[in-house]
Amino acid sequence: MTTIQHIRENNPLIHCITNYVTANFVANGLLAVGASPVMADAIEEMKEMTGIASGLLLNIGTLNSRTVQSMLVAGKCANERNIPVVLDPVGVGATSYRKEAVRSLLDNISVTLIRCNAGELAALADVPWEAKGVDSGTGNADIVSLAKTVAARYECVVAVTGAVDVVTDGIQHIEIAGGDARMPSITGSGCLLSSICCAGAAVSGGDYYTGVSEVMAFYKRVGEYAGKHSETIGEFGVRVLSGIQQLSEGNIQL
Amino acid sequence: MTTIQHIRENNPLIHCITNYVTANFVANGLLAVGASPVMADAIEEMKEMTGIASGLLLNIGTLNSRTVQSMLVAGKCANERNIPVVLDPVGVGATSYRKEAVRSLLDNISVTLIRCNAGELAALADVPWEAKGVDSGTGNADIVSLAKTVAARYECVVAVTGAVDVVTDGIQHIEIAGGDARMPSITGSGCLLSSICCAGAAVSGGDYYTGVSEVMAFYKRVGEYAGKHSETIGEFGVRVLSGIQQLSEGNIQL
Amino acid sequence: MTTIQHIRENNPLIHCITNYVTANFVANGLLAVGASPVMADAIEEMKEMTGIASGLLLNIGTLNSRTVQSMLVAGKCANERNIPVVLDPVGVGATSYRKEAVRSLLDNISVTLIRCNAGELAALADVPWEAKGVDSGTGNADIVSLAKTVAARYECVVAVTGAVDVVTDGIQHIEIAGGDARMPSITGSGCLLSSICCAGAAVSGGDYYTGVSEVMAFYKRVGEYAGKHSETIGEFGVRVLSGIQQLSEGNIQL
Repeated sequence: MTTIQHIRENNPLIHCITNYVTANFVANGLLAVGASPVMADAIEEMKEMTGIASGLLLNIGTLNSRTVQSMLVAGKCANERNIPVVLDPVGVGATSYRKEAVRSLLDNISVTLIRCNAGELAALADVPWEAKGVDSGTGNADIVSLAKTVAARYECVVAVTGAVDVVTDGIQHIEIAGGDARMPSITGSGCLLSSICCAGAAVSGGDYYTGVSEVMAFYKRVGEYAGKHSETIGEFGVRVLSGIQQLSEGNIQL
Repeated sequence: MTTIQHIRENNPLIHCITNYVTANFVANGLLAVGASPVMADAIEEMKEMTGIASGLLLNIGTLNSRTVQSMLVAGKCANERNIPVVLDPVGVGATSYRKEAVRSLLDNISVTLIRCNAGELAALADVPWEAKGVDSGTGNADIVSLAKTVAARYECVVAVTGAVDVVTDGIQHIEIAGGDARMPSITGSGCLLSSICCAGAAVSGGDYYTGVSEVMAFYKRVGEYAGKHSETIGEFGVRVLSGIQQLSEGNIQL
Repeated sequence: MTTIQHIRENNPLIHCITNYVTANFVANGLLAVGASPVMADAIEEMKEMTGIASGLLLNIGTLNSRTVQSMLVAGKCANERNIPVVLDPVGVGATSYRKEAVRSLLDNISVTLIRCNAGELAALADVPWEAKGVDSGTGNADIVSLAKTVAARYECVVAVTGAVDVVTDGIQHIEIAGGDARMPSITGSGCLLSSICCAGAAVSGGDYYTGVSEVMAFYKRVGEYAGKHSETIGEFGVRVLSGIQQLSEGNIQL
């Protein structure tokens, strides 16, 4: 059975501490793939909420001092329970506040997966990069090499999205082509991918590298589905959700 | 005139203290049915905002200590003004923080309607239930009986969504079938229903049981419209809004 | 080259401190027009985030004491850097808390543009108006005259949306007809317009009046596109994003 089939079969509950810009898209996408989302960020309920979840997503898109504290508590709880923790370091290169928050999270929590773009990867690796807010920026650093370095440093899987995605556990790596160039024009397409990676990790039986790689390849197919079934950008966003559902249910294949 | 026609005619302003995951969907749905949404949760403006509203929606989906305080202030103001208060106890069974917040709201505010799913109902009634985050879970308790108990205890209407909806005021009850099985796969479909119930209560002339029942029946038709006009889940979500508009404007009938 | 073409060419980063109801729609709309959105409101990162942006959007839709402080810090930083600041005073007439927040922002920040509806304009001008929450309300005050007064008082451009839009710098003004009557039925249609005005101002070379006017005229065309390509309200919202993309890319003309 594929990772995606396992998600639909097991319906993992994913506890998301995430930004308010894309929370709706993330929740709908998790539902579309057969997982269950719960968004909650009050520190008073972090232990209990992470305590019933199968995976934890930490996304710093609209972080603040309150939610960073909640992320720390939830992350430690996830580590104690041995459930996967996915970190999406949105725009980490943009401000020192984000850099420090991510450092604090990585110092205190054992992370299963860092899912980022090339600009965020460079910031994590302390490599100069023309980062422009939360955009990926452009550059010519060796993404595979950087990703392996970061994966080795934090003993986790690193998944970098771009025209060609890179997934590595620090030793082996895979490059995944395909998808649709319009995917980055949908806000939250990366956030949603991170959350589905978390669902995939949760049902992977501990083989995170394989689980994440399969989700990344699946998402490229979702992009192709959305591209094929839409002419304009509004429809494209709608069809990303449809593609997740249709492909994960096995109704169609690409 | 039906409750839905009254909403379109009177354009009630609904003050929503709600979660950031589904606020957009709720606002668009209220606009589609002819009501006016205002989302506001700063404690400094609660009295004035509730003071100009025709109904108050309290949704604990992404509650925190700040917004729970705002809910308490707004709820007391709504009670003083005698406008309806709808409580959507999202995921109340998931954490003790949610249970305590709901208890505090119910102890301090006279609520007009509790709109929930079966799992949340069980938590309100202190009945064991396999609640899984904010999902409804599964179980075989007698929903009608539980709903009547909760309605009697809090002297309010209780509306429980499921394959067959149940509405009760503690004495009489109605069961409403129909709809579309995909409705729970759209995040915020329950939140939006709660907000339209609030609009219906606001124009019901005090007959909350009838007003809420009519909204619940209407929403089943909306689900059928969305199901009929969409093949995939992305379109389904879009067509929920269209169905609300088309059915409430009387452009089509199901 | 038109302002819209300049946006697509220069891809300005717009720092948005905005409400959680419409943040997703705003982000997708900015992407659709070729700008880059970044939503961030933690006071710790305001200087750095505004420091890399080409424009700052302040939208008070779901303001609270924390975010108002962030707006003040970000606004001062934008003034120091001489980048445009757009204020969207959502529902300013509804509560004294909003009035005071807006007064504080206008007292401490030099604003480039106030983008509002007629009811909000009246509140800014201290003219009685039947404001109903964040709706525009109705009234018969002279909008052009009020807009000029407010523009002169704050030495900024004022853009008022309605059936006929008004843009003024306090001396000259332009009225822009067209669009689609359903635009106000999409939550965030005004918020999104404000953000695109900010992108337009950012690439205007300092001629804010022209830049904003061109964006306002463009958005009327977007409304017409959405109206032409949709029968129901759900599709209309989707097609607003498509219209922004299609018209700004020059794929079609209206």
